[in-house]
Amino acid sequence: MSAFVNIDAQRIPVALSHQPYEVVIGGEGLRGVGKELRRAGLKEGIKVLVVSNADVAEPYGDLCLQSLKESGFRPTLLVIEAGEDQKTPVSVALIHDAAYEAKLERGSLMVALGGGVVGDMTGFAAATWLRGISVVQLPTTLLAMVDAAIGGKTGVNHPGGKNLIGAFHQPRLVLIDPSTLKTLPEREFRAGMAEVIKYGVIGDSALFQLLEGIQELDTPSQLHQDLLEKILERSALAKSRVVSSDEREGGLRAILNYGHTFGHVVETLCGYGNWLHGEAVAIGMVAVGELAVLRQSWSRDDANRQKSLIAKAGLPIAWPKLDPEEVLYTLQGDKKVKDGKLRFVIPTGIGNVEIKNDVSREEIRKCLSELS
Amino acid sequence: MSAFVNIDAQRIPVALSHQPYEVVIGGEGLRGVGKELRRAGLKEGIKVLVVSNADVAEPYGDLCLQSLKESGFRPTLLVIEAGEDQKTPVSVALIHDAAYEAKLERGSLMVALGGGVVGDMTGFAAATWLRGISVVQLPTTLLAMVDAAIGGKTGVNHPGGKNLIGAFHQPRLVLIDPSTLKTLPEREFRAGMAEVIKYGVIGDSALFQLLEGIQELDTPSQLHQDLLEKILERSALAKSRVVSSDEREGGLRAILNYGHTFGHVVETLCGYGNWLHGEAVAIGMVAVGELAVLRQSWSRDDANRQKSLIAKAGLPIAWPKLDPEEVLYTLQGDKKVKDGKLRFVIPTGIGNVEIKNDVSREEIRKCLSELS
Ligand SMILES: NC(=O)c1ccc[n+]([C@@H]2O[C@H](COP(=O)([O-])OP(=O)(O)OC[C@H]3O[C@@H](n4cnc5c(N)ncnc54)[C@H](O)[C@@H]3O)[C@@H](O)[C@H]2O)c1
Ligand SMILES: NC(=O)c1ccc[n+]([C@@H]2O[C@H](COP(=O)([O-])OP(=O)(O)OC[C@H]3O[C@@H](n4cnc5c(N)ncnc54)[C@H](O)[C@@H]3O)[C@@H](O)[C@H]2O)c1
Repeated sequence: MSAFVNIDAQRIPVALSHQPYEVVIGGEGLRGVGKELRRAGLKEGIKVLVVSNADVAEPYGDLCLQSLKESGFRPTLLVIEAGEDQKTPVSVALIHDAAYEAKLERGSLMVALGGGVVGDMTGFAAATWLRGISVVQLPTTLLAMVDAAIGGKTGVNHPGGKNLIGAFHQPRLVLIDPSTLKTLPEREFRAGMAEVIKYGVIGDSALFQLLEGIQELDTPSQLHQDLLEKILERSALAKSRVVSSDEREGGLRAILNYGHTFGHVVETLCGYGNWLHGEAVAIGMVAVGELAVLRQSWSRDDANRQKSLIAKAGLPIAWPKLDPEEVLYTLQGDKKVKDGKLRFVIPTGIGNVEIKNDVSREEIRKCLSELS
Repeated sequence: MSAFVNIDAQRIPVALSHQPYEVVIGGEGLRGVGKELRRAGLKEGIKVLVVSNADVAEPYGDLCLQSLKESGFRPTLLVIEAGEDQKTPVSVALIHDAAYEAKLERGSLMVALGGGVVGDMTGFAAATWLRGISVVQLPTTLLAMVDAAIGGKTGVNHPGGKNLIGAFHQPRLVLIDPSTLKTLPEREFRAGMAEVIKYGVIGDSALFQLLEGIQELDTPSQLHQDLLEKILERSALAKSRVVSSDEREGGLRAILNYGHTFGHVVETLCGYGNWLHGEAVAIGMVAVGELAVLRQSWSRDDANRQKSLIAKAGLPIAWPKLDPEEVLYTLQGDKKVKDGKLRFVIPTGIGNVEIKNDVSREEIRKCLSELS
């Protein structure tokens, strides 16, 4: 193993004014995490609490701890149970207990090794230990790699709703090892691909075309490594661009909600857990694509291209049988209401969206009847 | 009641680059809280969750809610049990539950009506609800007025230590109504006075002299309103100056720990709860004053002036019988160790201190033997 940080890695800067950081893709991956931490300015000898779950710690925990030790860090590992229902203040308390046991200090570090659940709750635990210590994200799901790990949104769920408890806390580094996706259940991989397609539609037509050209998009095992890294790179770039220009969700960041408004309806009315988040977003993008056709915001052809790509990625495209009035009611609960009008991110072409506050209930009803 | 904000109030700016705010002292006090919130830019009609405890809600809750309603806010009140042992994640969860029940949104507000305990945990709950909503501090103890409410340090205790869980979250406004001190137990008032004396020693010799001139310093009921407001004003000014120049405790803010290093030893070795925090700080200031004499950093006369003032405020000055080696051990646990040397804030005169990293164990032993 070389003593130097691998130069083949892709490095995407997240250009924040206060504490900029890099999203590093590929290179030595988890084997090089220790060296990457040093490169990111974390000091030799500091204590590191690695938080993970069994699905991830089993295949990758040792690799990660080993690399940290080789670079002179003092790591300990905490394994939390897997699952969205663990994303609670109780798990945060477990992480805090471990932080206390490990005697973490202000200069210490937490590392999240896992999907979005581990990332969100570890990020939040770091944000609130000693009024904020550093955190590094090592995402191991496609969703976490292209979305959750980048941008500093951290948090856990409250019985009343998802992510109600949280903080903004940017990581010091996001290190993506694409090879960890080999063990990810394929359905999870596909769900993550929905967010990748989203980046294509909202701002990167080249990414969209790249995806259109990949036949094995729904089978990660067949996906060529170079293509996968390219996808990760374009996605990280898309997310980091939006985050850099709108760190705390004032405005632009809202375009990341493309497909999520209808997606949220699907999640709520079909019961959480029936569809994965990314699957609901896929259905939501098809639905809002139809709305955009009705509003003559983009062409039928664009809508069809989007739908085909989503289908090719092995994602659902059919709007479920739902009472339109219930849909409208849920949309309003979603707080995207202004003066009786609804707020949507509407595509104007492949690679371009607009935030619209003027969608009427009539338009929604029409769109829903077209969909079913 | 006038429709305008009272102009007699003292206004101390806390000049932060991101979101500056004011410490408002006197004026209409709690009766004018609604108007002050409007002045601070909080919007009519927003929901406000007021958090307090029974000691404080009983005399002042209605006054506060009334004023908020008159100014067009939609307040609800949550009463938490009083006491340092309630400053836990469990109380934060209660506040979050109430926030959910009250349907707080991003533009909503939490208000802390109480001492440092209510202030710290409400501030933290606000920092972590919806990734951070606004908070306003209405301190009702002398300690909270001159210290805890200003500066954005929020948090709760972990079984392993005080304030281990927390966040930096600046308030939108600190409104001090000195008349609420009438119901505060006198011992609590005196404990708060220790921090006031601290401000005098570390940076404001005029404040120190003002205090020296007040005969009834230990009896709040006898203290003239104008003098009290002057004390509050100078203290808020002192705290806000330090906070403005060092928002996140990089450097200067450390001088606020004057008296706290030895004070912490007293709290730890005499058992928490035996001495109030301010009382321990009083003993700590006398002790470090002696250390400064030994180091020829300030004169015997200065040390005596400090000791007399502390005694006049009705605060303890005698170092308790403690094993010097245990004291040294505790000091080191306090993390103020660099290369076997200890770190102290040392006075160089009334109104001036220096941070010193070179205090030897020998000096401490000598100082302790002088004290006993
Ligand atoms: N912070 C943000 O900006 C943001 C953005 C989007 C989503 N999220 C959050 O992310 C969470 C969803 O994240 P997710 O989709 O990664 O789910 P997840 O973290 O629950 O992971 C999905 C499943 O895959 C397993 N797993 C993860 N990596 C694996 C690997 N390499 N090999 C084998 N198994 C593996 C996990 O144990 C889990 O069972 C949600 O809680 C959501 O709120 C956050
Ligand atoms: N955030 C900071 O920067 C900071 C600084 C210093 C201290 N603190 C924290 O502040 C806390 C101590 O604060 P405190 O000394 O205000 O203690 P406190 O909040 O516990 O109040 C002391 C007692 O007085 C009662 N009380 C408060 N106001 C009253 C009133 N007007 N009339 C009658 N009773 C009243 C309270 O119910 C309590 O019983 C500690 O937890 C400490 O960690 C925080």
